[in-house]
This record gives sequence, C-alpha cells and structure tokens, in this order.
Amino acid sequence: MSTDHWTHEFHDSGSAIGYETEDILYTEQSPYQRIDVFRTRTFGNAMALDGCWMVTDRENHFYHEMMSHPALLSHPDPRDVVIIGGGDCGTLREVLKHDSVQRVVQIELDERVTRVAETWFPTLCERNDDPRAELLFEDGIAWMERNGPGSADIIIVDCTDPVGPAAGLYDVPFFRTCHNALRPGGILIQQSESPLLHQDLLATLRARLPIAGFDAVRHVFFPQPCYPSGWWSATMARRDGDLNRFRASAADEVDTRYYHAAIHRSALVAPRDIARQIEGETEQKSRSSDFPSNAP
Amino acid sequence: MSTDHWTHEFHDSGSAIGYETEDILYTEQSPYQRIDVFRTRTFGNAMALDGCWMVTDRENHFYHEMMSHPALLSHPDPRDVVIIGGGDCGTLREVLKHDSVQRVVQIELDERVTRVAETWFPTLCERNDDPRAELLFEDGIAWMERNGPGSADIIIVDCTDPVGPAAGLYDVPFFRTCHNALRPGGILIQQSESPLLHQDLLATLRARLPIAGFDAVRHVFFPQPCYPSGWWSATMARRDGDLNRFRASAADEVDTRYYHAAIHRSALVAPRDIARQIEGETEQKSRSSDFPSNAP
Repeated sequence: MSTDHWTHEFHDSGSAIGYETEDILYTEQSPYQRIDVFRTRTFGNAMALDGCWMVTDRENHFYHEMMSHPALLSHPDPRDVVIIGGGDCGTLREVLKHDSVQRVVQIELDERVTRVAETWFPTLCERNDDPRAELLFEDGIAWMERNGPGSADIIIVDCTDPVGPAAGLYDVPFFRTCHNALRPGGILIQQSESPLLHQDLLATLRARLPIAGFDAVRHVFFPQPCYPSGWWSATMARRDGDLNRFRASAADEVDTRYYHAAIHRSALVAPRDIARQIEGETEQKSRSSDFPSNAP
Repeated sequence: MSTDHWTHEFHDSGSAIGYETEDILYTEQSPYQRIDVFRTRTFGNAMALDGCWMVTDRENHFYHEMMSHPALLSHPDPRDVVIIGGGDCGTLREVLKHDSVQRVVQIELDERVTRVAETWFPTLCERNDDPRAELLFEDGIAWMERNGPGSADIIIVDCTDPVGPAAGLYDVPFFRTCHNALRPGGILIQQSESPLLHQDLLATLRARLPIAGFDAVRHVFFPQPCYPSGWWSATMARRDGDLNRFRASAADEVDTRYYHAAIHRSALVAPRDIARQIEGETEQKSRSSDFPSNAP
C-alpha cells in the first residue's frame, strides 16, 4: 500500500485515503491480521489492520467519542458496559470518563492490537489500568452467548468491517444475544460504516435490530477522516423505550474534543436521502400491519 | 498523481484522497490551471483542477446544497444572487431551485472549467440555460468592486483554496466590497475548508468578517468526501441581523439529497473544540470593549 513517502488504503468502494508517512514504526503478522504502525508527517502515529486505517493520533476522537457518549448519555444510569472489539482502547477511555460506570468488560479478539496500541498510542490506553476495566482477549460473540441475561446496560460493538471474523456481529443471532444480555432500558451501539458508501448496511441494521427484539433504532452520523469517505455512522438500538431523550446537561460536562449536547442532537439527524428511506420503511411496516399477508 | 489504476490528490496537509480511475476522459491546460476529467469505477466522472479533486458525480451534492440552501433559506426573500467562482455550475443549479430568485450572476475566472463541466457533468449544468442565470467569465473581485451598492441579497463565494488567484477572496477588502454590495439583511457565504485541517482559516474568517462590517458570522459544517479530511465547512455572514432563524418549512420543500430543515439546524452546530474557540473570542471581545485600549 506504499508509494514513495505516502501510504494509502485502497477501499473496495473505489476510493482511497492516504497519509504522508515518514517511517514504519512497527509491523507484525498477528494470528488474525497484519498490524502496521506508521509515523505520519501531520497526523501523528497511524495504525492499519490488514492495510485498513484504524486510528491516527490526530483524528480518532470523532469515532471514539461518538461510539460511547451518545449511548451512555441516552441511558439514565449506565453501570455495566461491554465493549466488543475496541482493541485500540480509545472507546474504553471515553467510557471510563463516566462516573456512573462501575465495570467495563472489553472483549477483543486480537490481543496484539491492544499491546501494539499500548506502545504506540499510549494516550488511547491511558485508562487501561482503571480498576473498573477488565480486558479479555477472545471471541466476542461466544463471550456474549455465555454472559448472563440482564447483565449489561450498554453494549458497544467497536469492530472492523462486516467481513471475516466480524461478519457475525451484524447478524440477528448476535443481536438477539445482546438484547438478552441487556437490562431494561439497555442500549446497543454498533459501528455501521459510511452513510455514503454503505447505505445498504444501515438499512440492514434497521431491519435486523427490531427482528432481534429492539424497540428503537437510531443512526448517529459523524466525521471520521481516516475511514472511507471520511463520513461515518454508528447505529444505536434500545431494548425497550425510545432514543429521543438524553442527559443533555451531563453531555455538556464530558471532557471531549467533538461531542457535546448540541452535537448529540445534530448527530441523530438523518440526511434527506436516508430519512426518506426510513419513512418508506415505516410506511411499509404500518401498511403490512394493517393488512397482514399471513393473516389466518 | 496517477499510480496504476488509482489517481490520488496529495494534500499539503499530509493526507491524500484517491479514486479508482478507469479512463482519463479529458485533459487540458487552461490559461489558469490544468483541468482533468476521469471516469472512476464507482464515483462516476470526477474533475480535478491542478490535481485537486473538485467534483465527482456521486458526492458533489453535499457541497453544492450546503453552499446554497442554508444562505438562501436564512433570507426572507432572496431575489438577486451573485456566485463568485462556481465554474462547475452545481451551486448555480441549486440556487435556481428557489422560485423567489429573479437573477443569478455567476462570475467564474476560468471559462474552460464551465465548458468542460457542460460536457462531462451535464447534470450539474442542466439549469445553465435558465433565463434568470447570467454566466460571466472574468475576475470576481474586480466585478464585485464595479457592482453597485445594495444590488445583491446573497453572495456565494464558491472558490478554490485560499492560494493563488483565490487568495484575495478571503481578505477584508473583498469582504468590505461584498458588504457594500449587499442589501439590508443580505448574506455572504464562503467555502472555508476543513474544520479539522484548516481551523486557522475559520478563525481568520470569524475575525475578518466583522471588521468588514458584518453583524453575524456562523459556520456551516458538512461531509464532503472528495475534499481533504472528507469534512468541510462554509462560513455565512449577515450584513445586519442574525443567522439564528431560517424558513424551515421551505427548507423541507427544496428538492435535495442531503439538506433539509433539521440538517440546517445541525449543520450550524460547532464541534466542542471550535465552539470553545468561539466562546474565547467572544469573551475577549467583550473584555476589550469594556476596557478599550485606545480610549482617549
């Protein structure tokens, strides 16, 4: 992926994002993937997994803040948090900013990602020693299945693209397991790719999460420059109840670079093309419940 | 900028954006710049000026909608619109969606950009024959200086980066000329680069526009995947009055892919780091007016 002093990620979607790289700081083939860390000229250190940019020092805050605070602040009192994936520990750091949180279990498949992050992204890992944090390295789907029902308030799926080992994290059986693991009012948030390039995935999540029993589904939109198109999304789902309210004054108190209460409200606004798709789906659903095709 | 079947723009800011290109459809050295048009695999046609991506078929709508509708809908009755730059005519097309508009004068320096757009981006140019549109090809700054005071309701500065011929478009004398050309309640909107990579430029505009006499200044934030970082901004300034209200029901009526009333409100929300800078500047200003250093 390197040409001269530039290193590019070439996306299947036909676009590419590159950084001016001054040095390869570290490279390793872990049991799961190739891990590279570069020193860039202007974005600090940057980590790529199998050639896909994961984090850079300069602009990881959008993703990590938006994967954590909107869900935590939509819950009245989040105590038990589960992170599936999240190996760079940036999301964990944000979660631990919330005093209500008593325990965070992070289940990352590839321990090497976390160890590399500890060395090359120490800021992201600065809360790894928090006594409330428990770092496990195993398969997140299997762990969730073993986990007791009603044991979590928030589940954050901070995973790679929906291919390979991560594909099961976008399927109904996994969502059912999460639904079962959540306490009443509990919230699942899942990274859901680019709202420009992967609109199908957003539609798939809107269809699958209710099948798994979730009451309310909302997308969260935010910039993330190192990911394809530079525009990203997460999808939040609530076990029961809606996602229209959140603790706005607490949102203004969290120590962040991007997120605050007004950004929370803004991030929930769907662009017109996606809003229209959602309207269409809602109409179709209400029509099909008016005239059920499988009625006896 | 080409390697194999990929064509990249390398930004001074140390990042790069590329597309998978299947063919070079057109290339020319105009009197002002090199113009290239590529057929990409997944983004339709893409135009680059001096190696910088300007538009792609697939995702130009963010920029063109956000450079036009927020300003036009913040004005109660926009009749006369001036576009400085805007050679690809995508902004012009959006402006002409507003029935209140009686005349749009577009002053683009490089006629070749418009002619190339007419051939390779016909959708962007589909309203060029509208009798309300007047296309001029000359220096926008000189044209604005000759233009009569109180002749415009909206001025849109849809220009390239603040270097070379476009640099003067970010200076106080040009802003004074615009202020003078606007009628009461008139609005200037100017593209203002990436809120991640060019925060200094946003701060410069916040400082310069009031010096030129503008009452209210607001940034507009939006995705624009083909521009550096994929996250972009425009800066709106009102001759007199504020920019807090807009015609929300009309905003929901415009035919768009991204913009609608709720996006208008969201786009005006500054991320926490920029909001803090703005607060700091406001405090400093109120302190300096309490104790004027040049008091007699």
